[in-house]
Amino acid sequence: MVEQNVQVRMRRHPEGMVTEDDFDIVSVDVPVPGPGEAVVKTHYLSLDPYMRPMMDPLRSYVPHLNPGDLMPGAAVGEIVESNEPSLPVGSIVTGMLGWQTHGIVTPGTCRIVDTEAGPTSAALHVLGMTGATAHYGLLELAKPRAGETVVVTAASGAVGSVVGQIAKIRGARTIGIAGGPEKCRYVREELGFDECLDHRAPDFLEQLAAATPDYVDVLFENVGGPIFDAVLTRINDHARIALCGNVSQYNADEPYGITGMRYLLVHRVSMFAFVIADHREYWPGAIAEIGQWVREGKVRYREDIAPGLHNAPKAFIEMLTGRNFGKQLVEVAAS
Amino acid sequence: MVEQNVQVRMRRHPEGMVTEDDFDIVSVDVPVPGPGEAVVKTHYLSLDPYMRPMMDPLRSYVPHLNPGDLMPGAAVGEIVESNEPSLPVGSIVTGMLGWQTHGIVTPGTCRIVDTEAGPTSAALHVLGMTGATAHYGLLELAKPRAGETVVVTAASGAVGSVVGQIAKIRGARTIGIAGGPEKCRYVREELGFDECLDHRAPDFLEQLAAATPDYVDVLFENVGGPIFDAVLTRINDHARIALCGNVSQYNADEPYGITGMRYLLVHRVSMFAFVIADHREYWPGAIAEIGQWVREGKVRYREDIAPGLHNAPKAFIEMLTGRNFGKQLVEVAAS
Repeated sequence: MVEQNVQVRMRRHPEGMVTEDDFDIVSVDVPVPGPGEAVVKTHYLSLDPYMRPMMDPLRSYVPHLNPGDLMPGAAVGEIVESNEPSLPVGSIVTGMLGWQTHGIVTPGTCRIVDTEAGPTSAALHVLGMTGATAHYGLLELAKPRAGETVVVTAASGAVGSVVGQIAKIRGARTIGIAGGPEKCRYVREELGFDECLDHRAPDFLEQLAAATPDYVDVLFENVGGPIFDAVLTRINDHARIALCGNVSQYNADEPYGITGMRYLLVHRVSMFAFVIADHREYWPGAIAEIGQWVREGKVRYREDIAPGLHNAPKAFIEMLTGRNFGKQLVEVAAS
Repeated sequence: MVEQNVQVRMRRHPEGMVTEDDFDIVSVDVPVPGPGEAVVKTHYLSLDPYMRPMMDPLRSYVPHLNPGDLMPGAAVGEIVESNEPSLPVGSIVTGMLGWQTHGIVTPGTCRIVDTEAGPTSAALHVLGMTGATAHYGLLELAKPRAGETVVVTAASGAVGSVVGQIAKIRGARTIGIAGGPEKCRYVREELGFDECLDHRAPDFLEQLAAATPDYVDVLFENVGGPIFDAVLTRINDHARIALCGNVSQYNADEPYGITGMRYLLVHRVSMFAFVIADHREYWPGAIAEIGQWVREGKVRYREDIAPGLHNAPKAFIEMLTGRNFGKQLVEVAAS
């Protein structure tokens, strides 16, 4: 039997919460590489919150998906056929291959993974996009100083977990916010944050005030909505906010209204929204530094691996509702 | 009869909209200058939106007023008695003298006004704090480039009118937003903005979309609330927002919830809240440059002068509801 390329496509724009019925799983021929191209067989696919807003029919100039489009996403895999000398068969590469078992790459659309630096799956998070996101947003935009208070939302997530560990390396007092006692324990005990608050606790606002007696100098914001509003009430003069995600709102029919804008003004806060794809030149240095920290045991991580591409929609939905624990990956083929 | 110092004090914290009953008018002795001090007799008092949030009983470390406190504010006047050689009798000075007919200054709490640069009242706006605010927020934070689209809210106000005129000098396409057709006509025809939209018009959102075909690169935000939310729907990639005021919300019992946070993220917007009092070193250069533009006819302004200190509460309330036209001043004594 000839091997097929299995793909997950968006069947329709979701209404509110994504469901498995919003996806189609189809089989097509494995692509044939043209000149300068190579075929990758995917080992791991990364599932990330940014994919959700791309599924909405938003304004025309925002990148978004149409029904029938392949779901986008970063993946890591092995070159299995090549017409490009710089991408020899057997190399491990990562790129935006999408939710499929086989994809085409060129030297400009992938990077070769240093398999000595760590497990290849780490190229999809701590040694890849989410690591670079954490490094850039915290150190280039928010710029915490030693002794300042840094708050990180979605602290157990792929980005937040790295942000907090870097903040600790830089000598900041680091407060995580996460959903549920198990995640909070992990953030405190395994990742080494100074504190982690459960935003589902009935007295969350009181806990937040108690944990930030000197107020909040840096907020690394991944979730938005009422948690963002809560932290604004504790923001310090001249605070910096790195606005990285808004995951609490991606499935909302009606967006939550942020009522704390006045705190931004009164405290002369700067807020920087960013997407790491705009800063490709920044990745190699950031990934090299995080790789060093990983080897020194200063940056730790956890993976949550769903088995098989057919489980990707379910794992994606669970990730959006916070049921994953660690960086959400899909094992597409055994490596 | 011995001259008295008439003062306007906050009688109580306002609940919602400020009323005249929230103020007391009292007479006390004219202050006696100590060593190094001088007495100023006020000619003009400036009324500004920032005074309103100071009247709220907010968090303890935000500067705010207690019942019985003198209302704060910038004023310009003449030295009438002096124990300080650098502040001779007859000099015109400006400083934070508050809502009163007489105040004490030292060399560190006032600046001598160059009476050749323009009318002395201009030291309270275009050649003073509001001019410096416009210059700093636009040119140091938002940094418009020629050909970009700049939106200015409260465009006919003391800050907004200067912002838009500087944006035009820098070659930006400049769209004002103001309340009512008379203000919009003034902004277009007298201040030279490319367009001015009336946010009270029933089709304001459609007008805004039509006026920003290339989206919004810079927003100079003075009002907040639903107008801010409306502009967010038109924000461009990598836009910059100077967050200067939130006047629509200063009297609100329940703050408006901003629903457009997702636009900040999708378009990687940077937002800078600021208060010009943090940047005293910036004032002289900014005021000198604006003075040059005023003399060249490139920056124009309008004043709305209430007669007599006893009218200050009423004029303040009218300013907060947008009924003033031009920079709101109070003529405290004939100059």
